Amino acid sequence: MTRDAVHPFDQAITLAGDPAGARDGDLGKGYANMVGPFGGTIAAALLQAVMEHPQRLGNPIASTVNFAGPIADAPFTVRAEPVRTNRSTQHWNLLLEQGGQIAVTGSVVCATRHDSWSDNERSMPQVAAPETLPMFANPASPVWTRRYDLRFASGQWGLDPVPPSDSQTHVWVRDAEPRPLDFLSLMAMSDVFFPRVFLRKQTFCPAGTITLSTYFHATPDSLAKAGTDYLLGIAQARRFHQGYFDQGAELWSRDGELLVTSSQMVYFKV
Amino acid sequence: MTRDAVHPFDQAITLAGDPAGARDGDLGKGYANMVGPFGGTIAAALLQAVMEHPQRLGNPIASTVNFAGPIADAPFTVRAEPVRTNRSTQHWNLLLEQGGQIAVTGSVVCATRHDSWSDNERSMPQVAAPETLPMFANPASPVWTRRYDLRFASGQWGLDPVPPSDSQTHVWVRDAEPRPLDFLSLMAMSDVFFPRVFLRKQTFCPAGTITLSTYFHATPDSLAKAGTDYLLGIAQARRFHQGYFDQGAELWSRDGELLVTSSQMVYFKV
Repeated sequence: MTRDAVHPFDQAITLAGDPAGARDGDLGKGYANMVGPFGGTIAAALLQAVMEHPQRLGNPIASTVNFAGPIADAPFTVRAEPVRTNRSTQHWNLLLEQGGQIAVTGSVVCATRHDSWSDNERSMPQVAAPETLPMFANPASPVWTRRYDLRFASGQWGLDPVPPSDSQTHVWVRDAEPRPLDFLSLMAMSDVFFPRVFLRKQTFCPAGTITLSTYFHATPDSLAKAGTDYLLGIAQARRFHQGYFDQGAELWSRDGELLVTSSQMVYFKV
Repeated sequence: MTRDAVHPFDQAITLAGDPAGARDGDLGKGYANMVGPFGGTIAAALLQAVMEHPQRLGNPIASTVNFAGPIADAPFTVRAEPVRTNRSTQHWNLLLEQGGQIAVTGSVVCATRHDSWSDNERSMPQVAAPETLPMFANPASPVWTRRYDLRFASGQWGLDPVPPSDSQTHVWVRDAEPRPLDFLSLMAMSDVFFPRVFLRKQTFCPAGTITLSTYFHATPDSLAKAGTDYLLGIAQARRFHQGYFDQGAELWSRDGELLVTSSQMVYFKV
């Protein structure tokens, strides 16, 4: 396979070195954010270290990523350590170091799932189909946004001179260059939502995720069914207070399966 | 102060040893759950290691606790390590070991908050006042439930022969023996909700929190205002699938301040 045939996402999150040891990564500039790389790709690179580790048991069901310091578009090292392996669950600790400093800490839980009673308590909201909506395009937006085909059904910031009274967004998302959905891209997409404060204030301001927890309801079957189709993303905050707000999110397959629920605590200054 | 004068919660989460090093704890049986101690007290004991650490900066804004293995009502060791300290945020890694095994991993983010635009996007639902509701009392319920004054305004499991179509609960909660609210008790109370599957199936079944992330919107001022009064807790799941479900929660002060938002991924078998 030539380098050109590798999807930009896979290029970005490629890790080198012993899969059971320290891994070398470099997200490059393909998913650049305002400062450093898009947080979703950082989270995906951490998860990649788990996915490729020879001791992995089952598939991820939960991940927490703590953004402890600024990250440059430059080489870094990731370490994934299986700290406890049970019969059906496995707990991992993760560290990302850059320039001799810890920049990200994290944890991942993997599990082999079992049959059980199942229920979709929450059902997918009905919104306009992606084909009826324009693709998001803003030359002033960070590079990473061009890696996604984003179509806002509601709550696109920067369009309305009157700030809305709530921060809810409904947005369709898929990789701009088609790539079958997997846990890695699902992880990255769980962070595609602009900071809710942009929407509420209808302005750009300094803001950054401090910690992001992502729960995977998706199984390999769900991923195969979703393929390269759009996912519906929903995000909303509940309280903005003294420099921090929470941001909850969901990702749905187009046929109504809840694939991911996530929450993050976000720093902001306005 | 005699031992009798110490609140059972403070007794439970007391840590001995060098506050900058390994801490020895033993939650005892005062907050016993079905197996081992109530998860909320485990999370609080971990946070205690941060609160008492001489290098702590500011107050907690976020915590993630991963329950990696069973914990016995027996002595354990907690280590809290400040892995990165910035100007206004500080990231901690936590480990709880018992019997030579890692039983819990976690992370805490502390911060010094700054003035900012603020908004309570979500407002507190109106439910019956706690004084008008009976105090939860069930001799078959685990010991820890007796440490709280719980009053269900909706969604109490075990009362209805017909399982409800959603898992939402509204419950007032305060320490049964009055104790002024602090970050430690708030942490514990963020985990007082019975597993949502009990409610949906109207039956008891094996279930346990795998990972719990708690965001503190409360500041010391909020805690002082809440004092020993009831908080309103709300919990709900979104999807139950192949052995796991998510459980989101909120804790509100009685006068309508959102103090905590949290989410957890829960194992279940039914």
